[in-house]
Order: sequence, then C-alpha cells, then structure tokens
Amino acid sequence: MSDPRITPRTLKGFRDFLPEDMARREHLIDTAKAVYRSFGFSPIDTPALEYSEILLGKGGAESDKQMYRFEDAGGRDVAMRFDLTVPLARFMAQHVGRTGTPFKRYHVGPVWRGENTQRGRYREFVQCDFDTIGTKSVLADVETLLVIHDLFSALGFERFTIHANNRKVLSGLLEDMGLSTQATPVLRAIDKLAKVGPDRVAAELEAEAGASGDQAARILEMVSLSGDNEAVIADLRSLLATSETGTAGVEELAALVDGSNAAGVDPARVRIDVSIARGLDYYTGVVFETFLDDLVDIGSCCSGGRYDDLASLYTKQELPGVGASLGVDRLLAAMEALGLAEERAAGADVLVVVFAGFEGEALALAADLRRAGFAVEVYPDVRKLGAQLKYADRRGHRLALIAGPDEIERGAVQVKDLATGESREVERESIGEAVAARLGD
Amino acid sequence: MSDPRITPRTLKGFRDFLPEDMARREHLIDTAKAVYRSFGFSPIDTPALEYSEILLGKGGAESDKQMYRFEDAGGRDVAMRFDLTVPLARFMAQHVGRTGTPFKRYHVGPVWRGENTQRGRYREFVQCDFDTIGTKSVLADVETLLVIHDLFSALGFERFTIHANNRKVLSGLLEDMGLSTQATPVLRAIDKLAKVGPDRVAAELEAEAGASGDQAARILEMVSLSGDNEAVIADLRSLLATSETGTAGVEELAALVDGSNAAGVDPARVRIDVSIARGLDYYTGVVFETFLDDLVDIGSCCSGGRYDDLASLYTKQELPGVGASLGVDRLLAAMEALGLAEERAAGADVLVVVFAGFEGEALALAADLRRAGFAVEVYPDVRKLGAQLKYADRRGHRLALIAGPDEIERGAVQVKDLATGESREVERESIGEAVAARLGD
Repeated sequence: MSDPRITPRTLKGFRDFLPEDMARREHLIDTAKAVYRSFGFSPIDTPALEYSEILLGKGGAESDKQMYRFEDAGGRDVAMRFDLTVPLARFMAQHVGRTGTPFKRYHVGPVWRGENTQRGRYREFVQCDFDTIGTKSVLADVETLLVIHDLFSALGFERFTIHANNRKVLSGLLEDMGLSTQATPVLRAIDKLAKVGPDRVAAELEAEAGASGDQAARILEMVSLSGDNEAVIADLRSLLATSETGTAGVEELAALVDGSNAAGVDPARVRIDVSIARGLDYYTGVVFETFLDDLVDIGSCCSGGRYDDLASLYTKQELPGVGASLGVDRLLAAMEALGLAEERAAGADVLVVVFAGFEGEALALAADLRRAGFAVEVYPDVRKLGAQLKYADRRGHRLALIAGPDEIERGAVQVKDLATGESREVERESIGEAVAARLGD
Repeated sequence: MSDPRITPRTLKGFRDFLPEDMARREHLIDTAKAVYRSFGFSPIDTPALEYSEILLGKGGAESDKQMYRFEDAGGRDVAMRFDLTVPLARFMAQHVGRTGTPFKRYHVGPVWRGENTQRGRYREFVQCDFDTIGTKSVLADVETLLVIHDLFSALGFERFTIHANNRKVLSGLLEDMGLSTQATPVLRAIDKLAKVGPDRVAAELEAEAGASGDQAARILEMVSLSGDNEAVIADLRSLLATSETGTAGVEELAALVDGSNAAGVDPARVRIDVSIARGLDYYTGVVFETFLDDLVDIGSCCSGGRYDDLASLYTKQELPGVGASLGVDRLLAAMEALGLAEERAAGADVLVVVFAGFEGEALALAADLRRAGFAVEVYPDVRKLGAQLKYADRRGHRLALIAGPDEIERGAVQVKDLATGESREVERESIGEAVAARLGD
C-alpha cells in the first residue's frame, strides 16, 4: 500500500522561518518600527488582496506579469499586492480627508511577486516602508535621510554610506542640452557606468539617446564628479548655472547636506553621488541609496526618494511625498555576514527544571521570576535531569534553575550557568537577585 | 469627458487600518508577543500561499468553500492559508528534525476566508496563536492557561474568567453509556444548552444521538454541574468513578487547577465548566474559552485546547500538542468598549515647530531629544505657528517646542503643553530634563 500522506512542502520561492531566523527578523522589524516612531511616523495597514484594476499597470509590464491575479468566488478580478506603494496611493486617495497632510506613515507587510526564483529572488517577502505625504519641503527630505541613518545605527552598523542624488540635476542638464525627452535611455546608460566604464557609456549615450559626442562628455563629466560634498556641490553649481531646474536640484542637495550636518550626522556617512540612477525614472527630486562599506557588492540596503504625485491615478488631489524602503532580506544577510546577528536565544533566558511531584514548586518559581520581569520557561515534561538540561543547551537558555526535593527541603535553588556549566546554590527567597546578577553579566 | 481615474476602494470584507486603529493593533500584538516570549515561546512564520492539497479538507467543507484558491502562473493549484494551525502541522512534519520537541512556537499573521460578510465577518484577519508541540504533559496545559491569564492581565483586563473543560470527561461518560459513536450529535446538542434550555437539549439528545431518557438526564446532570472548582471536580469524580477515560479527564482538570493555584492565579479567574463544547470535536483533552465578565455576550476572546495528533496527514510521527488562539478583532473591540484602548498618540509625543531660516536649529533640537530617548517629530513645512500647532492638536502630540529667532538669540526654547495650553520657557541646554519632566506627568 502506498503512503496516503501528503508530502509536506512549500511552494518554490516561498519560505518557512524557523525560530532563530524569525527572532532576527522580528528584532530587525521592531527596531525599524521604533526608529520610525521616534520620528513621528505612525503605522497603517492595507489588505493583501486588492481589485486588480487598482494594481495593474502601476509597476510596469514586469509587475503585471508577476502579479498573483485571479477571480475570487464572487467573480471579482483580484490580485495580491506586489509592493506597499501602490496600496499607499490608493489609501491616500481614499482617506486623505481623514488623515490630513502632512501624513507620515510606516507600513510593514508581505508582498508577492511571481519572480524567477533562479535569480535568488523570493516570491513572498516583507517590505518595510516609511513615507511623508503632502509636502514638498526639503525638511522632509532631510528627515528621510536621518531616519535611514538612525535605523542603520540602531541595527549596529557602523560603516555605512547614504548616497544622495537629485533627479533635477540630470533633468536640468538634459533640458539645457535639448535632450529632455531622452531621460530614460540616458538613465539606462548611466546606470551601467560602474560595470562597463565611461567609453562604452558614452557610446551608448550617442547611439541610444541621440547625444552628440560633446553632450555625452558633459553628461559623463557630471555623473563622474567626486570629492567631498562641498566640492561636488560647488562643481554642480557651476555646471548647472544656466539651468533653473538643475540649480534647484543642486540647492536641494546643499540643503540636505546642511540639514544632515545640523542634526549631527557624521558627514562621512553622507555622499552626494550624481551617478546613482536606479529608480530615477519614478522619482522627481532627491534619491537615496544606502551601502554597507564592508559589503558594497550586495547593493543598496535602503533606497527611496521624492515623487511629485503619488496618487494621480485615483484622485485629483496632488500628493507629493518622500520616503524609503528597507531591504529586509538583504539587511538580515548582511547582519549575519558582519557578525551583527546575535545568536538570539530562541526561547526564554531561564529554564526551570521539573521534578515529579514538585511541579507546583516549579510553576511558582517561574511565575515569581516572570513577575520580576524575566522570561522563564518551565520544562513541560517530567524527565531525567540530563534530558532537561540537554534541551536547555540546544535551545540556548542561559540559566537552568534546579529545585528538587532536597533543595526544596532546605529552601534553596541551584542556579546553573549553561555557558560555563558552573552551579551555585542560592536561597529560594533571593532567587530574583541571583538571576538578575547572572543575566546581567 | 468622463474622469479616467480609478475609484479607490477596498474589496468587501477587507480593511484599511488608519494610524489610530493600527497603533492599537500593534500594541495588542506586541503585548501578546512579549507574554509569549516570557514563557519561552519563540516566533515562526510560514507562507501566505500553500499548495492547495496541503490546506484542502483540513478545516472541513466550510473552509474548503471559503478558501481563496487559484492556479498560479506556473500552473500550480495554490490557496491562501485560512488559519495558522494547518500551516503549523505542515511545518512540524517538515522541520521537526531541526526544531526537536518539545517545541513552543507563536505565530502572528493574516489569514483569509471568503466568509459571508453580512454576518459581520472579515475576509482577512490576523491570527495570534501559541502552541506547545510534542508533549502530553499536563504542565503544558497549565502553562497554556497561565499564558492566557498573563496576557489578559497585561492588556489591562481585570474581570475575566478562563473556562476549562476536558474532552475526556464527556468521552468517558459516553463510553460508559455505550454512546461513544454519538459524540458529535451529543456535542451539537449540548452546545445549545444556554440558548434553548435543558428540556429541548434532552429532547435533541434522544432524537439525534439515540440516548435514552435516563442517559439524556445523566449527560445533562454532568454538563450542568456548577459551584466552585473543588466541588465540581468532586462531583465529576463520583459521576465518572467507573470510567477510566472520564477519571483521567477529571484528574487532568484537578492538576490544571492545582498548577494554576501554585502559579498564583486568582482562583476566581479559572472555572471548571463542563458545558463548554465548542471545538470539542477537534480537541482530545483540555479545552479553554476565555470570557470578559463585563462583556460575556461577545463570546470567547481566547480559545484553545489539547489535540493528540497535529500532523498525521503529513507524517507518521505522532505530535501531540496544546495551545490557544487570541481573537484579535474581538479583543480590540472589547478594549475600546471598556475604555482600555488608550487614545494612543498616532505620532510622536513631541512636535518641534519650524521657523524659516532656522531649520537647522529645529533639526538639531529634535536630534538631541531623540538621542535622549524621546519620540520627536519636526514639522516638515515652514508654515505659520498656528498651522503647525493645529497639526499637533489634531495628531495628538503632547508637547510643542517653539524656538524662533528670539528664543534662539537668548538660548531658550518654549515648551508648550498642548493639553493645558500652558507655555514655559526653558534653557536650550536643559531641554531634555524639561521634556522628561512634562512627559513624566
């Protein structure tokens, strides 16, 4: 007879998270939420499923193709959200009368894309976004940078650099040269600079964007500017002196640097970088990418920028905004690679060992310690001491508390440090202080 | 010309959460997670989408009908999870070699059911479960009760009662009477006791479960037992003296009461209640329902129990367990009704007002306070003082900090209490202490 059981398995591109991984994810997300809240951002949520017409065409042909779209039992054409930005646009169009502006929200939740998993992509992943809606102020740009900065610091990263550009800088230059309509091929070419070098980018600018040799050289000169922020800004000012749009972009970058300095951010962590192009097609003002200095190759771990009009597909009301999105999977991998992902105990810090006939004492001991603020697990079965201690070792408890018949008789508890193996007997009455002392090490 | 815009709307039975609602939800869920962790439960997550064969038939015909099921772009038959228990079963069958047992996990996430929304049901809602897998010990039953108790306390509820029953009590009685095969119609009849009264339940027991008049009377006698827990247990012991199964159930209930007392739970909050029947069909041992004494009519806000074999559909390994699930929507409604849902400030506690030309000072002030641990928002636009203060009022900030040209000149900040309208000038250098003093009220 064949086994009638169903093979337990997950869909390709979907993941189970076991406790150790999940505890790290929770820590990262809780840290992000705490930083968002410390700047006055507040949480919202939206449904996983939307009418397909809300989502279709908003992320381009690629997004449409990857969308999990189907007909529900009521015959509605529905789809699972593929990001948190399109739902935010729909949300703002629907609720701006209640939320008012400026509106600062964060939103953490899963999104779904039928990606090609061979590129190491997942089909379900968590996005962790924050945005300020309803203001064009450069102060909101500065605050976006400060949130990114404080978040990376709070996660324990020391060596990271926030790269900032402004879409108007390139727009201004292209306007000046009569190449405004060629922004998309120009961006596509610039995006390859690091990979293929300036000669091939120049060739592509001429072939694909209709730039003259001189124009291609000017574009390359600008996107290759380097040096400290003040020098880059000075160079941009002179390169773009004749362009109103370009000058506006440079001055916004200058204000960004000033604001960041005023807030006490280490200037070495902020770099004006005219070469960052990715996403520029969608953004209209400042753009951010964040790199870990020790893991530059993994790419930007937090990206975002300013857009003019979030929700024009759903409402007449103009809703400019600025925000960014955290790369949760990428950051978790980086934290692991850099040794910042603590071996978080999957369970509680303390395990109370149980003896047959003395279960009540174990429960009382655990309850007392829990009331004192400790996380305490009672081993759920009456088994041999060795088996219970082995469980504590495997799960990563730091202390085991042992109170068998003899200890209970003399009003004592053995406190066993599971890292050192060392044991010490303390009075039952002062167990709180003893545990605090051991865990405080 | 017609408006080409798409109407922003959500699907029936799906919800947007605005900041005030979402902040309350986050508070409830964070509290639950903290309590789960304090007992040594650790987090896991599983995908929203599973192969349909994993989910089908696991929740009965009703669940199958309500399932969001479709064919993905790769031709796979997939469905959105309708609870967190079936995914847990699949997860344990797949990963028990890595997790080991006993395994204590919590899992918080959305689930989807195409419910009839006319009954006030949602089609997307969050479940918040905890379970201990791999042990039959009554200690794990006790701990389940303790988690429920500590959670309701942590949420601020004072008047609540955890009702406990044990499936073996009724099984034992039915075995004794030769009615073992009639458990389902018996449970269905008992479930109506509160609604239709004992006479009609007796009639149904005879008509639907084939009980004699005498048998129906014995069943009704048992499920109507009341009094304090010790009295009910004594009555059950004598009623079930001849049944091995029944006696085992009574002794498990007695151990539950003992354990709960040992851990210091107020005995008035735990009630042995042989009449609770809902869900008994699935459970095999202890069963819990939790009622708010001031809102009994809304039904159980946290239910659960013990099952013999979580994952027999996917694995040969026997995996008994016990756990419970929090009714998030119901609890949030109850907290609001009972005045326990604080008007949580949707944003930060402190708003820093901005003056033209002094944006850097505002940013520096906010950064200083944030480093001191406060949540501080900088108003993002340079607008009139009145408009900025109106925003603070609407959003629920507690303090506004005002440092215009004059204050900056003399090294001072005005601290405005937005509840009282009172303003006080303090030195810029001691702003941290001043804010702490005002917020500490």
